[in-house]
Amino acid sequence: MPRWEPDAVGRLQAAALELFAEQGFERTTVVEIAQRAGLTKRSFFNHFADKREVLFGPVAEGQREIVTREIAACPDGLPPLEAVVLGLRAAADAIFEVRRAEVTRRREIIEANPELRERELRKRAALTDGIADALRARGVDSDTALLSARAGVLVQQTAMRTWTRSVDDRPLRDFLADALHSLRTIAAQTADQGGVPVPGRADGIRDSP
Amino acid sequence: MPRWEPDAVGRLQAAALELFAEQGFERTTVVEIAQRAGLTKRSFFNHFADKREVLFGPVAEGQREIVTREIAACPDGLPPLEAVVLGLRAAADAIFEVRRAEVTRRREIIEANPELRERELRKRAALTDGIADALRARGVDSDTALLSARAGVLVQQTAMRTWTRSVDDRPLRDFLADALHSLRTIAAQTADQGGVPVPGRADGIRDSP
Repeated sequence: MPRWEPDAVGRLQAAALELFAEQGFERTTVVEIAQRAGLTKRSFFNHFADKREVLFGPVAEGQREIVTREIAACPDGLPPLEAVVLGLRAAADAIFEVRRAEVTRRREIIEANPELRERELRKRAALTDGIADALRARGVDSDTALLSARAGVLVQQTAMRTWTRSVDDRPLRDFLADALHSLRTIAAQTADQGGVPVPGRADGIRDSP
Repeated sequence: MPRWEPDAVGRLQAAALELFAEQGFERTTVVEIAQRAGLTKRSFFNHFADKREVLFGPVAEGQREIVTREIAACPDGLPPLEAVVLGLRAAADAIFEVRRAEVTRRREIIEANPELRERELRKRAALTDGIADALRARGVDSDTALLSARAGVLVQQTAMRTWTRSVDDRPLRDFLADALHSLRTIAAQTADQGGVPVPGRADGIRDSP
């Protein structure tokens, strides 16, 4: 029976992030991570399948749970993308907000490693599928559910990127609101409003000569 | 010097799609693909790095070239998402429209194999990056370029999915227009319009008791 180790997962994650930042992801071994956390290799493998999973496992799971639970609890008839963003906001507040430094370091490590980027893409696809299912369970038609889930994950991706790069202390939920607003603005812009002639249209009017 | 082999790439791709459909991706070897195409293993490796690349290489390259060239040629001031969709439409007409059966079979093979799905995600990320760069070259600010590129790729992903599943003969460009319209609709729906009370808002009015 494994010994009870207070917050072993958190200690292993913190140790891994430190070591990846210090000496690179590739050069860090599971033994080193366990040692830094004051734990054994065996207790590492009690919690993670491999070195990569330290960066993904529990956070991705927790996020999906919170987002889908929140979507299920939304008021009836709330438009699907609004429901998705409410779910993402709940996860932002519960998981990411208190971990900005770790999330930022994690992003840097993942972006520097193609194999990790790939796993990140896969986790994002799994989150999208979970969100689409949660919307379908609310009676949203299948295609709208998938498109809304993808649009929501795009909003989150945009918000996480700007939040981890920002120099002020605005919370992630504000960046989610900003990203949703940006997506709405970009989606709403049509060639007609832009005042430029569209190929094949006779009524295009230019703003300037 | 390699012998000139008329349309070796096309013949290898067609042979690979046939064999993957007949006996599965995993059980098909490069030798079998080359044999079916009437070519040698060596000429296979003249064109593709491995078995997976038959499903990705030249099409992904061709698509990115056409999309980014088209974006560069758009009228000044065209809103960024419109420019992206014009680019995707050009690729739809030039590459995908005449290959609907192959594209559909390719999708089925990729969806059945996690490793291929991962490579598909990576290629999509590369397309997104290429599109964002093409927008930046037009003077679009960096964040708007990335968000517009992602929104455009989402539109394309949605359109490809419905096009390959549709039973009528409508061209892919029509599905792109539909998907853009759906994204615009989903993005424009706000809680206020939905007529449902939003948590924390005093002015929400329900449509029904």
